[in-house]
Amino acid sequence: MQSTPYEIEVKALAAKNASKKLAYLSTHVKNKALLLIADELEKREDEIRGANGKDYRDGEKAGMSAALLDRLLLTADRIRATAADVRSVSSLPDPVGEILDMRTLANGLQIGKRRVPLGVIGAIYESRPNVTVDIAVLCLKSGNAVILRGGKEARNSNLALSRIIQESAYSAGIPEGSIQFIESSDRVLITHMLKMRNAIDLVVPRGGADLIRYVAENASMPVLTGGIGVCHTYVDRSADLEKSVSIAYNAKVQRPTVCNALDTLLIHRDIADRFLPIIAREWSKAGVEMHCDERSLAIIGALPSVNAVPATEQDWGKEFLALIAGVRVVDSLDQALEHIAKYGSGHSEAIVTEDYTSAMRFLDEADAACVYVNASTRFTDGGQFGLGAEVGISTQKMHARGPLGLKELTTYKWIIFGSGQVRP
Amino acid sequence: MQSTPYEIEVKALAAKNASKKLAYLSTHVKNKALLLIADELEKREDEIRGANGKDYRDGEKAGMSAALLDRLLLTADRIRATAADVRSVSSLPDPVGEILDMRTLANGLQIGKRRVPLGVIGAIYESRPNVTVDIAVLCLKSGNAVILRGGKEARNSNLALSRIIQESAYSAGIPEGSIQFIESSDRVLITHMLKMRNAIDLVVPRGGADLIRYVAENASMPVLTGGIGVCHTYVDRSADLEKSVSIAYNAKVQRPTVCNALDTLLIHRDIADRFLPIIAREWSKAGVEMHCDERSLAIIGALPSVNAVPATEQDWGKEFLALIAGVRVVDSLDQALEHIAKYGSGHSEAIVTEDYTSAMRFLDEADAACVYVNASTRFTDGGQFGLGAEVGISTQKMHARGPLGLKELTTYKWIIFGSGQVRP
Repeated sequence: MQSTPYEIEVKALAAKNASKKLAYLSTHVKNKALLLIADELEKREDEIRGANGKDYRDGEKAGMSAALLDRLLLTADRIRATAADVRSVSSLPDPVGEILDMRTLANGLQIGKRRVPLGVIGAIYESRPNVTVDIAVLCLKSGNAVILRGGKEARNSNLALSRIIQESAYSAGIPEGSIQFIESSDRVLITHMLKMRNAIDLVVPRGGADLIRYVAENASMPVLTGGIGVCHTYVDRSADLEKSVSIAYNAKVQRPTVCNALDTLLIHRDIADRFLPIIAREWSKAGVEMHCDERSLAIIGALPSVNAVPATEQDWGKEFLALIAGVRVVDSLDQALEHIAKYGSGHSEAIVTEDYTSAMRFLDEADAACVYVNASTRFTDGGQFGLGAEVGISTQKMHARGPLGLKELTTYKWIIFGSGQVRP
Repeated sequence: MQSTPYEIEVKALAAKNASKKLAYLSTHVKNKALLLIADELEKREDEIRGANGKDYRDGEKAGMSAALLDRLLLTADRIRATAADVRSVSSLPDPVGEILDMRTLANGLQIGKRRVPLGVIGAIYESRPNVTVDIAVLCLKSGNAVILRGGKEARNSNLALSRIIQESAYSAGIPEGSIQFIESSDRVLITHMLKMRNAIDLVVPRGGADLIRYVAENASMPVLTGGIGVCHTYVDRSADLEKSVSIAYNAKVQRPTVCNALDTLLIHRDIADRFLPIIAREWSKAGVEMHCDERSLAIIGALPSVNAVPATEQDWGKEFLALIAGVRVVDSLDQALEHIAKYGSGHSEAIVTEDYTSAMRFLDEADAACVYVNASTRFTDGGQFGLGAEVGISTQKMHARGPLGLKELTTYKWIIFGSGQVRP
């Protein structure tokens, strides 16, 4: 049953209405709902796995790759892990109601900011079915109604999950209508949703570059975009060799399919002869293909068992999401920073250096959501940063930058307690 | 000399380049520049008044109204006041470099957010020439390059002011190119500017509703919109009569042409008979025309010397910017909140009440940038709120809400100090 434009409007307006009550619901009720959702996900494991099995078989029939099928699969363990994540969101502090900068002005007005939910979040995603749970519970905890539009490959799984979330949440006292799920593989319907700025306060796209661009270009409401990570690691002239190798290795190999993985390795010319052969051998053992500029190719191109080919201009600024890395030798920190400014996507950038001034200059001048000294860019993640969870990673500068946790799904209102003050 | 599209691109790219140095310039240099700008504005008063005189005479010839001519006029006093404002911005704390939430994670990573400028701000405005100075100095202090596009009525004044600002700033050490001024009365050129998302990080429109809508609909980069204030004051059943009268009077009369002035007065039916005749007489003495719903008209319509006419549907949700107010009697706080939700613009809303629960419910449920209990909405202003100054007032929920001061012209980057950490 595909959703229709009329149905989307009805659901969005229901979400808008629900959001008004949800906004000032107590943390108690929200946490109770979260814990019930976690329990029911575990109890109704068979129902979830049954629905997921259908998606899996459809995927097999459609010739989906083994990697994609694995992303789609919900095992008992994965369902338990998802339930555990929901419980951990319930234990996070509620951002709603936080009072900021409260003070008394000379005229006696007591003035400050109070953190409040945004209202209705539209989430458009293509990823694994557990994203349905992640986004729904983060929105719930932050007091936002949510409209979920998942990918068609996970259609049955998403339906089962959202049914369980809705039933549990509503029975725990969450206002009916707060969690909406839209079924549609039709871009016309997404476009329709993107025009509903009266009902939806923010859209968060999560998926490939195409989806994100489409949403950013067609949305009439604000969009939090991100997730495209063209991440550089720069090995400075003064870098410690051991740290350089382990950081570059980790950033590329530990999980190459994600946005915070290394895409391009930049190496200062003074350390290239010593560093490049080591990382080239380590990376090659792990199956990494290096796309090298002339100078780096001259150093490692002829080494035995090293997988190095000449880079093309397209390799710089490319998010590989695979065991491929661009490799370039630079003359200076300045040249590294220029390369990053030109090709980076503003996600995560790292320098490996023992030089204090280089480290501080890199932190100043690399313009990205997350800038690292002597650490792997793989840490860019809401969980790793201590935010508990994330709905995505923003690479834009407005509103929120980097991992988007509960706080980033809120705004504030100025509240002013007076006693009859008027402006002179 | 009108600007051309090519010239706009050259200026925007120069601003982008300059912004990279300006971003981490010391507070000392920025403050030195601000103080020099203030001094030079006073020293070169004749030059400014000469240019302003031309605009004034052109305005007279074009048949501009006395009110608009007065807004255009720069007197010696007004120039001194503008210089004083610049000095006060120099004394505000620099938001750039502020470190937020810095902490050490279990793995030893030291992680936090550092406040950084947005980059390049595009300001498109129609207002008084001193807006050129206000916006330029707020951008400078917050480390942002700026592209100013002022209104054609103030063309010569804006040119003189921006020349003085540029010369003073650059001679004090601000990177050349940081302050750009674009001359154009042509919307095609504004549209061109609004497509330059690679060079301009944020656009702030300041002017009438038409301009703001045009910018919001055509900008490819983020826009901070606002300034449209449909502001309500609700007099609750339990309100103190004296406070109600003085707050409603102040909100409407003290400066009716601005966005935080009262547009619609809502009155609980139980207090309407006592309150309405008093405010109607006070307002009428001040020249306020009341557009009344049936019930309020029944109470005050026949009073002598009271200027009350029947309201039409168009009166609700209208920003009058004049001595006109919508007046409506409501049955309850709920009905007042419904009215505000339906017709408000999310700017400033006030309740007058002695009832604790009504006050707290209004603060919770009125969804606006600024929500007041027992005070005039006229306080919504960066200066009044203690932000020192403002580039405008945001009525959107993303990034910043309410008065936009220095902090609101910044973003943050996550900075991470490691010692070789990799992700397990």
